[in-house]
Amino acid sequence: MSTYRRIVLASRPQGGVAASNFRLETVPVPEIGDGQVLVRNHFLSLDPYMRMRMEDVKSYAAPQALDEVMIGGTAGEIVASRHPKFAVGDKVVGMLGWSEMGVSDGTLLKKVDATQVPLSAYLGAVGMPGMTAWYGLNQIIQPKAGQTIAVSAASGAVGSVVGQLAKQHGCRVIGIAGGRQKCDVVVNEFGFDACIDYKAGNLFKDLKAAAPDGVDGLFENVGGAVMDAVLARMNPYGRIALCGMISGYDGQLMPVHYLHMVLSMRLTMQGFIISEHMEFWPQGLGELGQLVAAGKLRYRETIAEGLEAAPDAFIGMLRGKNLGKQLVRMVAA
Amino acid sequence: MSTYRRIVLASRPQGGVAASNFRLETVPVPEIGDGQVLVRNHFLSLDPYMRMRMEDVKSYAAPQALDEVMIGGTAGEIVASRHPKFAVGDKVVGMLGWSEMGVSDGTLLKKVDATQVPLSAYLGAVGMPGMTAWYGLNQIIQPKAGQTIAVSAASGAVGSVVGQLAKQHGCRVIGIAGGRQKCDVVVNEFGFDACIDYKAGNLFKDLKAAAPDGVDGLFENVGGAVMDAVLARMNPYGRIALCGMISGYDGQLMPVHYLHMVLSMRLTMQGFIISEHMEFWPQGLGELGQLVAAGKLRYRETIAEGLEAAPDAFIGMLRGKNLGKQLVRMVAA
Repeated sequence: MSTYRRIVLASRPQGGVAASNFRLETVPVPEIGDGQVLVRNHFLSLDPYMRMRMEDVKSYAAPQALDEVMIGGTAGEIVASRHPKFAVGDKVVGMLGWSEMGVSDGTLLKKVDATQVPLSAYLGAVGMPGMTAWYGLNQIIQPKAGQTIAVSAASGAVGSVVGQLAKQHGCRVIGIAGGRQKCDVVVNEFGFDACIDYKAGNLFKDLKAAAPDGVDGLFENVGGAVMDAVLARMNPYGRIALCGMISGYDGQLMPVHYLHMVLSMRLTMQGFIISEHMEFWPQGLGELGQLVAAGKLRYRETIAEGLEAAPDAFIGMLRGKNLGKQLVRMVAA
Repeated sequence: MSTYRRIVLASRPQGGVAASNFRLETVPVPEIGDGQVLVRNHFLSLDPYMRMRMEDVKSYAAPQALDEVMIGGTAGEIVASRHPKFAVGDKVVGMLGWSEMGVSDGTLLKKVDATQVPLSAYLGAVGMPGMTAWYGLNQIIQPKAGQTIAVSAASGAVGSVVGQLAKQHGCRVIGIAGGRQKCDVVVNEFGFDACIDYKAGNLFKDLKAAAPDGVDGLFENVGGAVMDAVLARMNPYGRIALCGMISGYDGQLMPVHYLHMVLSMRLTMQGFIISEHMEFWPQGLGELGQLVAAGKLRYRETIAEGLEAAPDAFIGMLRGKNLGKQLVRMVAA
């Protein structure tokens, strides 16, 4: 293989993301230098945070540069190494972007054991999404047995882990997801006590029925009307981990009407970005890996085949078309 | 004096508060029993929290009961005592409500020294509003020298103390208030670095000019559009003490459009009710009393004369007509 393919950001979205915002390029495979490795990426992770990076606005990270490879987490295999710590055949996760191959000096590259845990899971339940769930739940919400925890985007890579961990804490867990199919998976596979289909149009009423004693902790991935419905049900001293507001990522502002509940119920709300809490990753990933290996933490994946499928898969994910972790597979299954 | 006057809640507001929601009653002065005192109230405190109590809704406290004396903080003098800890002539603060007199068994009644600090100040800068400012600033915002702190309702009983304390912490302090007159007082008397008149209609632009380095801490008393303007300017890891949302107290929901800043800037927002933090009152009131006695903490009062003036004064306060602490004086000045 003398060339490989990659996808760069061609233009910034005007409103919603379009396939034309991306450009597929074919480039030569580079020679690696001393201290470098060449990685063949097997999986690319598609995540909501990428949407925010596509905008040229003040946020927690620099915007994705135009004409450069789209940022993204990857899992793959070392195919050439001049680095003492990596050997050909090692499985690694890294941040090599929307690209079939990548060169690394080892920074942000981590060897993983794909014998107990499938390689792709290191991009999901045992990767950044799993850590996001672990940190937001344990460090911000700090759930106690018997409490009711609500999770939006409950069938997603983050939400599904939040709910399963909260169940292990002895909580009642209510998911919110879009559509009957996702809700069935949330309850039947992930073991939530209930899941509300926000598309059914009875969010407030359904939430009241599912959480008759109110909500003590909210893991928020969506924002807007979904967040409002839970805010209206929050109990005194409730805690909210604000992890995502995917409903507003296309640029329009999503009003929240029940912020007064933060005052009247003396809530604490905290926004967080998991990459700023690396000190927790070894502990969190260790726990998550053991749970997955033991069959105590389940996950779902939606896999698009081939790098060229990434833009459509990403747009679909932003619209909620995936179930569980959205991946792109770049080697034949 | 064989009778006194009091004001009860006659009906709950439909939208805005009306004078007809209150009823002035004349009742006999009761005989006190063993362990009781009779207090002649000199001042009644009017506070935004009363608005919320007038509604029959889920909140941090039980609703004000119909046909009972309106809740309220009072400062006055013991005029009869069969209680070992109180003597006739003692100055006291308590929660005797919208009433010229009150009987107490000593619960929630506190003797104060009105020689160094004027009696009325125990309802303002050295009372509940001052403590609200002290707690929200010191315990939630936790300001550091050099940071920029924003305060809405800056000329009010709470806001004016927040700003002066923040200045003593070495912060740059930006107030937001309604009207040029209030803003002049905020800057010239309370010593804020700047004050933005939200009625001037350039809130976002004026705030950007006044806080060119962004805002690190927000003490929020207003909500809605005023809060949005500051949210949009928040710096990473900023902290928000949510103390009041007076803009929404008349029942309509006040949307907030910039909640995504809590995520992108990893903010912490916390609602609080000062009566739940009594353990801080001795320390806080001690500090505030010393500052007032030493002339290092200034305050303004708007005083309505006579209990019968309380309803209009309260309605005016909700509309921002007062400057500083709104009081009702029930004895001739």
